[in-house]
Amino acid sequence: MQKKRGIISAFINPQADGSLAFVERGCLLYDEHGKIEYFGAVPSADTMTGYEVLLRERHVTLPGFIDLHTHLPQYEFAGQGAEALLPWLNRYTFPQEARFSDERVAELQSLNFFQTSIMHGTTTTVAYLSSHARAAEIAFTEASRVGIRAYLGLTLMDRNVPAALITTPADAERDMLRLIERWHKRGLNEFVVTPRFAISCSADLLALCGRISQAHDTFLQTHISENHDEVAETAKLFPEAESYAGVYDRYGCLHAKTLLGHGIHLSDNERQLIKDRQSVVVHCPVSNNFLGSGILPYQKFRGEQLRLGLGTDVAAGYSLSMLHEAKAMTEMAKLRAHFDHAACELSVTDAVYQATLGNAAALSRAHDLGSFEVGKSADFCVIDDRRCDTLQDEEKNHYASLPERLNRIVYRGHSSMVESTVIAGSVVYSR
Amino acid sequence: MQKKRGIISAFINPQADGSLAFVERGCLLYDEHGKIEYFGAVPSADTMTGYEVLLRERHVTLPGFIDLHTHLPQYEFAGQGAEALLPWLNRYTFPQEARFSDERVAELQSLNFFQTSIMHGTTTTVAYLSSHARAAEIAFTEASRVGIRAYLGLTLMDRNVPAALITTPADAERDMLRLIERWHKRGLNEFVVTPRFAISCSADLLALCGRISQAHDTFLQTHISENHDEVAETAKLFPEAESYAGVYDRYGCLHAKTLLGHGIHLSDNERQLIKDRQSVVVHCPVSNNFLGSGILPYQKFRGEQLRLGLGTDVAAGYSLSMLHEAKAMTEMAKLRAHFDHAACELSVTDAVYQATLGNAAALSRAHDLGSFEVGKSADFCVIDDRRCDTLQDEEKNHYASLPERLNRIVYRGHSSMVESTVIAGSVVYSR
Repeated sequence: MQKKRGIISAFINPQADGSLAFVERGCLLYDEHGKIEYFGAVPSADTMTGYEVLLRERHVTLPGFIDLHTHLPQYEFAGQGAEALLPWLNRYTFPQEARFSDERVAELQSLNFFQTSIMHGTTTTVAYLSSHARAAEIAFTEASRVGIRAYLGLTLMDRNVPAALITTPADAERDMLRLIERWHKRGLNEFVVTPRFAISCSADLLALCGRISQAHDTFLQTHISENHDEVAETAKLFPEAESYAGVYDRYGCLHAKTLLGHGIHLSDNERQLIKDRQSVVVHCPVSNNFLGSGILPYQKFRGEQLRLGLGTDVAAGYSLSMLHEAKAMTEMAKLRAHFDHAACELSVTDAVYQATLGNAAALSRAHDLGSFEVGKSADFCVIDDRRCDTLQDEEKNHYASLPERLNRIVYRGHSSMVESTVIAGSVVYSR
Repeated sequence: MQKKRGIISAFINPQADGSLAFVERGCLLYDEHGKIEYFGAVPSADTMTGYEVLLRERHVTLPGFIDLHTHLPQYEFAGQGAEALLPWLNRYTFPQEARFSDERVAELQSLNFFQTSIMHGTTTTVAYLSSHARAAEIAFTEASRVGIRAYLGLTLMDRNVPAALITTPADAERDMLRLIERWHKRGLNEFVVTPRFAISCSADLLALCGRISQAHDTFLQTHISENHDEVAETAKLFPEAESYAGVYDRYGCLHAKTLLGHGIHLSDNERQLIKDRQSVVVHCPVSNNFLGSGILPYQKFRGEQLRLGLGTDVAAGYSLSMLHEAKAMTEMAKLRAHFDHAACELSVTDAVYQATLGNAAALSRAHDLGSFEVGKSADFCVIDDRRCDTLQDEEKNHYASLPERLNRIVYRGHSSMVESTVIAGSVVYSR
């Protein structure tokens, strides 16, 4: 049994309206199950009796980051091979994922992926795995060992990819049912039904995915409209469907627990359909530029009330840091605004909101993740912003308000600023 | 007197044709004055007798980075206030630069700026200072103490800026002559004539700058065509000139030692004029996006045989890392290509070349800086790429060729990967 604990620090607390509250000196107390019992001004010593309280008054505490779209087996080659999506998949991704048939590769890489995620302050990760059921078992085991909240999916493909990665709907069903039984909603884990994308899935496989995800109340993750060639290829493979989104809808894959990666080139009709189904479009700005796919018009989609998320999409994104992704999100929006001749309305606040409470809402977890509120889970990271990219102690910095420190963290931060990461009240990482 | 020294390591060596040579295991030997005596395969033990040779076989050694455009007094607020150029100058830059009238601020910030530069592997920096002659003395003193190659300029303004920053041509002449006498071509220092930009300079001040830079054989640095409002304001202030570049040319400020920051919106005629004068346009991609100024069509200008450079432009750029700038250069080119519907031809190789030998050529120092060749100065940084942003020892990484390691360094690197920085044979930084 854990103890009752707390922390006194500066806090950045995302709000339901998309803003951030800055608390120059606050206190967070949580119980032995990791549930928040108090958040606010530093209370009297009496109130803190019985809590082991950490003093981190020079640090900034943020809710743990939520990465809504990433690929565990790809992390090893992050930063390699910036080509367009389809050639890049063939040259880098498929051969790398095939290596996960080796259990030692799967074990070492899974452990490194989860450890590197928490080192960057990520407390919840939603990741594609390889297509190997055994590697998926290993990934869930390692996630549990590390203590991260892990939404993990066996990546399913039954056509148009190398033979080493091919499954059949029958095998996929058997493997999914077994993984759901062993891991879904056990500890901090959830199983995610994961057809890679329409190009690599038959109608039968997609229909199975729609059915299983609805019958077992799991998330379903897939890709959509990342790249023009991919969109054209999908239309060719599914001539009966009205659109790319229509393919997924036809087979029961569009619902309120569906996470659609990218969605850059979605038509008006597709966005309306996705909105009607309450599915989520996950923005991956670093990846989208790395592969030259384009830039999601995030603000426009947000204005249309589309549900949105943010993810690193490693390895087309090259970092597991959601702070880095938040920075990229503001930079890409600025660039898009430049070429659209529109004003850029996307700030660091918007990006940090999306990486925390925004992504919690996309996971339908806003009631227990993403900000500091009584009753929520104590998932947070403690940042020592004196360790930004300079030799000088940042305490001497003239720009010392909490909003200014946030800007510095987002633009000049790197992983070694994360002092510790706590998930459900347990310290899972400490520098 | 230093010793004769050497290093055995992997090397990345830029070539005159813009390519990079990858040396999996090589040796660099240099004499007691820091001049390279040997570079190539590891020689016999006999050949190395008399040298103190460092073994860094797991590391990658690169030529020291050259930052061709940055602002020393602005580093403290890097990452703050992403607005358009002119409001940003008024709100952040001018008040911050005014603080350099305080000698303690000047001393502390100068030391931090140079130390942070070498911590990022930068061995040569070309920086704007504040407008205070005393702060310029302090900056040269601190640069000498740190041991960095410093091209530094007293930033001159005699109109359209706050009173605290205003000089007169007479005072500017006196201050420049004194600084040239004391610091120009002394040790590793050079004085740079620095009219901030046409908006803040009278015709008399510009004419003085042209005259002094030519009479004393100094570089001249200024800004050009970063932002549409700035271009329009310049045209209003100099109705007699044909163009923005024409303003500088009219007053003798365009010559082969002129470094022109930005140049995003230069016309065909202006580029021809700059080419005729053999001046250099310095690309600052991070800054240009941070302030929403646009993206320089680097490849197009390169194809026109314009002389080009690369700089961090702190604090509109938010990092002093030239590796970060190289990454941004490839990313911005990709984005520009996307909106231009053109292919992106700019690679990590191009960017690392520009940050090293390319910038040496822009400084007319390709004969002694920017790559490993006998007779050149031993300016380099040693990178431990096992320390990229992951908990796993990168030696276990499957992508282990030197080109792959370079990609990882550029995309996933951060300052703590720089193990040591050497300038003219002296170790100036060691982690």
